[in-house]
Amino acid sequence: MATPAPKIKFREPQIEMAHGAGGKASRRLVEELFAPLLLGTAPGPLGDAAQIQINGTRIAITTDSFVVSPLRFPGGSIGELAINGTVNDLAVSGARAEAIVVTFVLEAGLRTEVLEAEVRAMAKAAEDAGVRISGGDTKVVEHGKADRMYITTTGVGRLIPGVVISPESVKAGDKIILSGPIGDHGITILLARGELDLEAEIQSDTRSVLPLVESLVQAAGDGVRWMRDPTRGGVATSLNELARDCGRGIILFDEKIHVRDTVRGACELLGLDPLHIANEGQFLAVIAAEYADAVLKALHRTPGGADAVLIGEVRNEPAGTVLVTATYGGSRVVDMLVGDPLPRIC
Amino acid sequence: MATPAPKIKFREPQIEMAHGAGGKASRRLVEELFAPLLLGTAPGPLGDAAQIQINGTRIAITTDSFVVSPLRFPGGSIGELAINGTVNDLAVSGARAEAIVVTFVLEAGLRTEVLEAEVRAMAKAAEDAGVRISGGDTKVVEHGKADRMYITTTGVGRLIPGVVISPESVKAGDKIILSGPIGDHGITILLARGELDLEAEIQSDTRSVLPLVESLVQAAGDGVRWMRDPTRGGVATSLNELARDCGRGIILFDEKIHVRDTVRGACELLGLDPLHIANEGQFLAVIAAEYADAVLKALHRTPGGADAVLIGEVRNEPAGTVLVTATYGGSRVVDMLVGDPLPRIC
Repeated sequence: MATPAPKIKFREPQIEMAHGAGGKASRRLVEELFAPLLLGTAPGPLGDAAQIQINGTRIAITTDSFVVSPLRFPGGSIGELAINGTVNDLAVSGARAEAIVVTFVLEAGLRTEVLEAEVRAMAKAAEDAGVRISGGDTKVVEHGKADRMYITTTGVGRLIPGVVISPESVKAGDKIILSGPIGDHGITILLARGELDLEAEIQSDTRSVLPLVESLVQAAGDGVRWMRDPTRGGVATSLNELARDCGRGIILFDEKIHVRDTVRGACELLGLDPLHIANEGQFLAVIAAEYADAVLKALHRTPGGADAVLIGEVRNEPAGTVLVTATYGGSRVVDMLVGDPLPRIC
Repeated sequence: MATPAPKIKFREPQIEMAHGAGGKASRRLVEELFAPLLLGTAPGPLGDAAQIQINGTRIAITTDSFVVSPLRFPGGSIGELAINGTVNDLAVSGARAEAIVVTFVLEAGLRTEVLEAEVRAMAKAAEDAGVRISGGDTKVVEHGKADRMYITTTGVGRLIPGVVISPESVKAGDKIILSGPIGDHGITILLARGELDLEAEIQSDTRSVLPLVESLVQAAGDGVRWMRDPTRGGVATSLNELARDCGRGIILFDEKIHVRDTVRGACELLGLDPLHIANEGQFLAVIAAEYADAVLKALHRTPGGADAVLIGEVRNEPAGTVLVTATYGGSRVVDMLVGDPLPRIC
């Protein structure tokens, strides 16, 4: 009965921070080790949530561990992130979160008030997002075997009728919508750690994107091809994954992508591209061209959607590539994130 | 719209190992902090899995983080435990695991071969238990911020028709069935750490109990009142929770409870009660008396069920208490686990 154990291609001798950063190394770990062993030999494109069937009902499910450091930062905290991150993974998979279960790995010696603050943040985020928390588990490890607390959330959701998210459906001419400015979350975390000698008025964009996704879906109907929340690895990594999965080219219009001055400044200081910086309250959507205007209007009318913008389009060439073009001069290829310049941002 | 933030009763200033041990401290943390803030003010009895409804379909869901140390031990490993633990939590909730999602928190510097071995162990356990792995997430933390790896699994399952697990349904006269010998897992972990100057031929009992639970359910039908897998805190903690939740007394027959000599010896050396030691491949069931014989026969016929035994019964008095009686002389009250004599056993 037992199937022969599959071989794996992953050849790196040990796990490095970059394997958790959401970029190229993460993708190698997933595609060359986890997927062949755990998901079968021919996994489809790896989305933010899986669809499973229970008693004939299709549901979406997603799971994430949160290890962000510091635990609290301007605009959010690990508990709030753990709820919204999971609500958002479901939303961009075309599902409305219905229930979340949660586990805590706590470091012995953690102050109760620190834990309580995060549990309250989770309760509030869940209430705001309209999702109930249905159960959980707690483990405690010795002092020095964790960094205060790690939280894992798993969300199950109801599929929004009529929405089929699939890279294969993406066609030349489709438009790319981005919900707002990029890089706020990653740079906020960096500044909150005090590692840069820089102070700035900036806060994480962490929020539930479900209301915006619902507006978009209502306006675009079956014109929604693909969605993703560009967290670890940023917009560039999400769109490179799409370009690879759909085998087409993604053209971005540089001037259309909103990057706050603080984010741009910090990125220049560090030699980073804002397109690689994590977001926690934004999403990307690929929409059939004829729905683009209606979608933008709908997003602009929805609270939190005023900054939604058309940032690019899909073309047949250059296949598998993300190209950023500037009105005045030139274009550049933007690859997936390589390495891990900003560890533990979620 | 916002409901006022509830007050909590939990007054301990910091988190200790005992809060993760599954006994009294864990219960206080859940009942006095997590439940009032996250689950609403009047949670029901806390089972191993929650039931949620998606599009009118009831499904069971359970989540657990695994932090066992060492990662590998005679009879099993963290990866295998992470699958079977979740399959078992669903099984004793009357559900058959359909899909599992998994997250890894990895310590930078972890050897790939160590990770690969656990991923293979998960794949094998999932295949053996007939459950598919549907997705996951990986985070990496700096060296010294985790203990090699922590795994979180979340399982969703289909409810086995006709099975209603509920402490409220437990009546005086009901019989208590235990699937096999107790304490093997906890003592195996203890010996694997080399903390006791003791060598013994013993291995963890870790396995999927689903085939046994299905045999039991088939034999008992609507005579199944309650099930639980006595992991952290052992048989005594599971049955004390039941005694409290159903408001009745649990009488155990000391001679009927199978404890291997190695386990008994290690427990005597450490001043521990085998009834407090964790199991990973056993379950307890409360059955209407008229089905007890049929259930035992069915279990004995099922592979792995040869040691199933009737260990006690439910009485109206002493309400809320677990009493162990010996044929020759006396009886003793056995409480829930207090403290954490064997940390990180799962």
